[in-house]
Amino acid sequence: MGKTRLEAFFDGVAAIIITIMVLEMKVPHGVAFSALQPLLPVLLSYLLSFIYVGIYWNNHHHMLHTCKEVNGVILWANLHLLFWLSLIPFTTGWMGENQFAAAPAAAYGFVLLMAALAYAILQRSIIASQGEDSVLKRAVGADWKGRASPLLYLTGIVLSFYSQWLAMAVYILVALMWLLPDRRIERMFERRKG
Amino acid sequence: MGKTRLEAFFDGVAAIIITIMVLEMKVPHGVAFSALQPLLPVLLSYLLSFIYVGIYWNNHHHMLHTCKEVNGVILWANLHLLFWLSLIPFTTGWMGENQFAAAPAAAYGFVLLMAALAYAILQRSIIASQGEDSVLKRAVGADWKGRASPLLYLTGIVLSFYSQWLAMAVYILVALMWLLPDRRIERMFERRKG
Amino acid sequence: MGKTRLEAFFDGVAAIIITIMVLEMKVPHGVAFSALQPLLPVLLSYLLSFIYVGIYWNNHHHMLHTCKEVNGVILWANLHLLFWLSLIPFTTGWMGENQFAAAPAAAYGFVLLMAALAYAILQRSIIASQGEDSVLKRAVGADWKGRASPLLYLTGIVLSFYSQWLAMAVYILVALMWLLPDRRIERMFERRKG
Amino acid sequence: MGKTRLEAFFDGVAAIIITIMVLEMKVPHGVAFSALQPLLPVLLSYLLSFIYVGIYWNNHHHMLHTCKEVNGVILWANLHLLFWLSLIPFTTGWMGENQFAAAPAAAYGFVLLMAALAYAILQRSIIASQGEDSVLKRAVGADWKGRASPLLYLTGIVLSFYSQWLAMAVYILVALMWLLPDRRIERMFERRKG
Repeated sequence: MGKTRLEAFFDGVAAIIITIMVLEMKVPHGVAFSALQPLLPVLLSYLLSFIYVGIYWNNHHHMLHTCKEVNGVILWANLHLLFWLSLIPFTTGWMGENQFAAAPAAAYGFVLLMAALAYAILQRSIIASQGEDSVLKRAVGADWKGRASPLLYLTGIVLSFYSQWLAMAVYILVALMWLLPDRRIERMFERRKG
Repeated sequence: MGKTRLEAFFDGVAAIIITIMVLEMKVPHGVAFSALQPLLPVLLSYLLSFIYVGIYWNNHHHMLHTCKEVNGVILWANLHLLFWLSLIPFTTGWMGENQFAAAPAAAYGFVLLMAALAYAILQRSIIASQGEDSVLKRAVGADWKGRASPLLYLTGIVLSFYSQWLAMAVYILVALMWLLPDRRIERMFERRKG
Repeated sequence: MGKTRLEAFFDGVAAIIITIMVLEMKVPHGVAFSALQPLLPVLLSYLLSFIYVGIYWNNHHHMLHTCKEVNGVILWANLHLLFWLSLIPFTTGWMGENQFAAAPAAAYGFVLLMAALAYAILQRSIIASQGEDSVLKRAVGADWKGRASPLLYLTGIVLSFYSQWLAMAVYILVALMWLLPDRRIERMFERRKG
Repeated sequence: MGKTRLEAFFDGVAAIIITIMVLEMKVPHGVAFSALQPLLPVLLSYLLSFIYVGIYWNNHHHMLHTCKEVNGVILWANLHLLFWLSLIPFTTGWMGENQFAAAPAAAYGFVLLMAALAYAILQRSIIASQGEDSVLKRAVGADWKGRASPLLYLTGIVLSFYSQWLAMAVYILVALMWLLPDRRIERMFERRKG
């Protein structure tokens, strides 16, 4: 089975997720710049989530690049990832509209945690489908980023009950960690050519 | 006529359907976890519908895989299926916001029933276009899942007036029945290679 | 310049238009079937507009099929068509929520009229780009459907001030007239092969 | 890394942006044509933004045409551009609902300015990836349109505090300036063939 439609479906859902979040930013009624001020936390949480969805799209792009065929397990692992990503606009809106209060910040981290686990499952199901000589397995290597992220999200969730700012700091840290595009797979392909 | 645009259009609409359902989950005003509690039925109906749209996307993927050319009848059978799928967010929202009350649960089953019939029509129109030696026809075989689903939806609709929980149980059962990806077509292709 | 992205963009916008219309059908507050009754006109106008967008998507599909290269004029003629199509959810909602009142019914016809003219412009710009031996020109032939539609929409707009039901009858008539997929181009290709 | 998914993602987000703007045009409650009058500024700002997104889509189409491979920097420069474009529906709605008041008109210009800078960064990152003999670099040439636009947006932002109509005139001027499709790259390819 080809992977084109799986990629297209992922891209479609990611494009919608990344765009509907901005609908949470309701047009203010005032006409002065001050009317924008209460929207600042909404805009900031939108920015963070935009970066997260961008990271997922980027990494998905790289991961599928190693993949020629997909099977039923991969299709459903992909849908499972999309389910958790589709909840990001909800937690983003809840967090943004409540100035990063404790419970919304924890819920935000929970959805990120579940998306990270779903991504790991998708990665594993692709590796399994590629057999012994999996290109993706070698590309991913020790995968310390992939292993550290869930632990960091968990830390963020716990921290949110003490200080939501610490929680946010952790979420931003994880985003920065991933922001550099995943060079591992690119390098792999270059090494092969060389 | 090529099938690429038909697939792309189906994927686009399915991606939007699967994502706008989550817009029904309005961001709560409270900042405590308890504010999420009234959203639980909405989340659960979203989850069920997400799985249903995922199943349709998966099966559509497999079905179109057997298909090289499409004609006008197939284009409209495809649009007809999309029409009923596009009503799923509406019935999902109505059911979720009313704690699975009788009428919304029946309406939910009715839209699922119509989508199942529309899928059967699409399947038939593709088989007709493939002529005597239809790959899809052999792949589908006795199609007991396809035949049982409408009857089960009907049962669910009737049951919803006695106990909406029984109705829900039926809808969940049908989803589970389909959840295993449709191996028939995959197997077919493998057998051919072998 | 290739036509792939033009097709993909058209499909994307058409998919969104066809799906967001259903968002106008607000989830009712009641839990009885009677709560659906006031939504009936909304559902019916949605159905009509769904068919119209489906027709445009179908005909666009056929038209672009004759086309190998696109130029800047075609890109903008395509965007112009999308602009008018994007207003359909608005007029559909206005008409549906006001039980097909005179002004909304006229506005609905006006947007259909402008979309029809935009389609004619797009068709002309493709024919012009294909030069003397235009495949599309021969396929379209006398184009009586394309010529009759704007006149019928105009009739519908005028009629809406006397009886909105007559106006609706005209709009439905035009939809039915187009509903049979545009066989002309399909036939053309078959004749060529033969 | 191929460019197909980058194009598809851009197209998906652009299609959604261009379509959700129209959702800001809330269906009016009145049934007379006069009910449309307060929507006129909303419609006009929608039209302007539709043209702007169309221009970006067109130019992006041309720019990526010169590009065979994309890297991580280009992926993120593309997402950065999409971030600013995704804010256009918000500023469009704010401006349209407040009859082009000063602050919304300035905010509208600010988002256009940031999008223009993001486009310039994307263009630069593609040129950098193409090395010495960059096709895009020669195609863009002196790029006076690209250089003038940010200055004109800045002028518009400043003018909006004196007269929002002058600001609007500047924004319309820039749109008209770009409206003619970017012939430079088309010409380039033709010259090469010749």
